[in-house]
Amino acid sequence: MDKATLIVFNGAGKALEEIKTDIPDLNPGEILVKNLYTTICGSDLHTYCGLRQETVPTVLGHEIVGEIAGFHPGHTRKDYAGTVLEIGDRVTWSIFASDADSVKAKAGMPQKAEGLFKYGHAQVTATDALHGGLSTHCVLKPGTTVLKLSKKIPLKVAATINCAVATVAGAVRLSGSLQGKKVLISGVGLLGLVCAAMCSADGATEIHVADLNSDRLKLAESFGANVQHLLNQNPVLPTNIDVAFDMSGSPDAMEMGLEALTVGGIAVWVGAVFKTRSVAVNAEQVVRKLNTIKGLHNYNYDDFLQAVKFIETNYLKFPFEELVSAEFALEDAESAFNFAVADKPVRVGVNIAHDL
Amino acid sequence: MDKATLIVFNGAGKALEEIKTDIPDLNPGEILVKNLYTTICGSDLHTYCGLRQETVPTVLGHEIVGEIAGFHPGHTRKDYAGTVLEIGDRVTWSIFASDADSVKAKAGMPQKAEGLFKYGHAQVTATDALHGGLSTHCVLKPGTTVLKLSKKIPLKVAATINCAVATVAGAVRLSGSLQGKKVLISGVGLLGLVCAAMCSADGATEIHVADLNSDRLKLAESFGANVQHLLNQNPVLPTNIDVAFDMSGSPDAMEMGLEALTVGGIAVWVGAVFKTRSVAVNAEQVVRKLNTIKGLHNYNYDDFLQAVKFIETNYLKFPFEELVSAEFALEDAESAFNFAVADKPVRVGVNIAHDL
Repeated sequence: MDKATLIVFNGAGKALEEIKTDIPDLNPGEILVKNLYTTICGSDLHTYCGLRQETVPTVLGHEIVGEIAGFHPGHTRKDYAGTVLEIGDRVTWSIFASDADSVKAKAGMPQKAEGLFKYGHAQVTATDALHGGLSTHCVLKPGTTVLKLSKKIPLKVAATINCAVATVAGAVRLSGSLQGKKVLISGVGLLGLVCAAMCSADGATEIHVADLNSDRLKLAESFGANVQHLLNQNPVLPTNIDVAFDMSGSPDAMEMGLEALTVGGIAVWVGAVFKTRSVAVNAEQVVRKLNTIKGLHNYNYDDFLQAVKFIETNYLKFPFEELVSAEFALEDAESAFNFAVADKPVRVGVNIAHDL
Repeated sequence: MDKATLIVFNGAGKALEEIKTDIPDLNPGEILVKNLYTTICGSDLHTYCGLRQETVPTVLGHEIVGEIAGFHPGHTRKDYAGTVLEIGDRVTWSIFASDADSVKAKAGMPQKAEGLFKYGHAQVTATDALHGGLSTHCVLKPGTTVLKLSKKIPLKVAATINCAVATVAGAVRLSGSLQGKKVLISGVGLLGLVCAAMCSADGATEIHVADLNSDRLKLAESFGANVQHLLNQNPVLPTNIDVAFDMSGSPDAMEMGLEALTVGGIAVWVGAVFKTRSVAVNAEQVVRKLNTIKGLHNYNYDDFLQAVKFIETNYLKFPFEELVSAEFALEDAESAFNFAVADKPVRVGVNIAHDL
């Protein structure tokens, strides 16, 4: 029987542990995937550094791309879009599985639905170990949204589709059409850069980006941003913004975004997935300016589909591939984390299936 | 030439002044209305007490119902719904006039559009004095949304359509369908009571009301509320609310509403039209619960139409008429204000055209 190799996280400050485990027989509805590439997301780093608690032992990594290695015999062998799937097909899959027939899933919130399971966040047990990106294999559970990908898309770009890109697709859904709009994006990490690119592709005319890091602001130019605001230099921000996306989670940034909104403007909050002080909201201003604030965590089925379409259409138009500035082998995952923490690149990659 | 009588407000702490003025010739697009009844809104009281500044001299009162007394010869003589208008027809009209062809009006925000004029808030000048409710007449300017009303609707109910009822219609538009939903309404003044009635008519199954005043909570029962929360007794509030309407403007209440929301829940803020402390928003919770906060000030064309339809259908189903607990003659407007400030009824009425 084939073995899988896993890099197990046992808690912050502890060395990552490489283990081998049997690849189990598949249950009904399951697909076995060989992981090809995993990028390390900011939330992986939060967990690695102890800023976020997960039940351990776990296998981190949820921005993953892989190829199909097997189906349970009864599987429909179709992806979410209805495309026939075969062994060897390259696929991306939602970071969550849940009951698609549940009330919340039908209400457009499958990421909060009954039976929720999240890849890269679950406990490794004797019978259920293949659910993280820092592993040679994943078993995709029923209720996972699987989409076939073109093999032309570079692996390091494809890996980010099911987290950063899909989440931004959700944010853009919440904002409504961006054609001719003025947008402000606070926080220029991968979410912010993808957001700039999507706003640009969707026809936004002014794409303001705001960050504390001037290199990131510079980088955003290649992703469609046309106005930069360096936040430690008391920038004069506009007050005619139609949509203010916050990808930073910083209360300062969210407050700035609300101040920048025009009448009828929308703030979309995405970055605030960690504990911090409250955001001080001037309710009179929200009321008089007819503003809307929308929170988004993860994404729904259609967001994921839009994310795949966006990357298929745009992976060469914006320099996504350059954002993965360092690449490590699976057995070097600890070096990948340490490099990510020390150097703070937009992403580091873990190339699982290929020799480096 | 006929004369109009106006009750002029010259600033907080000053006696109201009764003056007579000529009724001017109408300009193109204008309608002359004989005011029949005006109810005194909370914002009139704010101005009267000096909590809100208006340019004086002004004529307060914007919750008005009247009857048509004349048209400029070139007027189309049709209301917003296309109904033919005639002299003597009873009408309600939007509290604002603005340019219906402007970008903001076309984007569904005529209340913030170019050329904005607001009845009951404008300065009285030698040539433009007939624009308030505490007056025998109003001149309706082009860009005012006029709707013919059934004469069966009691005047004291009809007077509230163009402010409280239309604003709540806007809030309910922002909330989406309430069929089968659980709602929380904080602030049980006229806005809160109308909101309870609209939620009830729209099929909400749980209608929670929250206020500091137990009499108001009791009153809300007749308007469809089925769960009461007395706020000075540390009530245990639900956490499964689909829509939390705030009609109070109290930051405490808005914070409470956000805590009460379920996943995907919506907060609609309406009451916050005065200066107060910031609302402390837990952004992580807004993000993880996929919550939305929508601010609303005034209303748009369709909200106004829905408000008329709602009152026409429901004016007997809920005891709206009882909410105007005291009535004064126009020349007694000062007594009306003083009674409203001292007794805090839901509304006091000023009966302009009829003997008391």
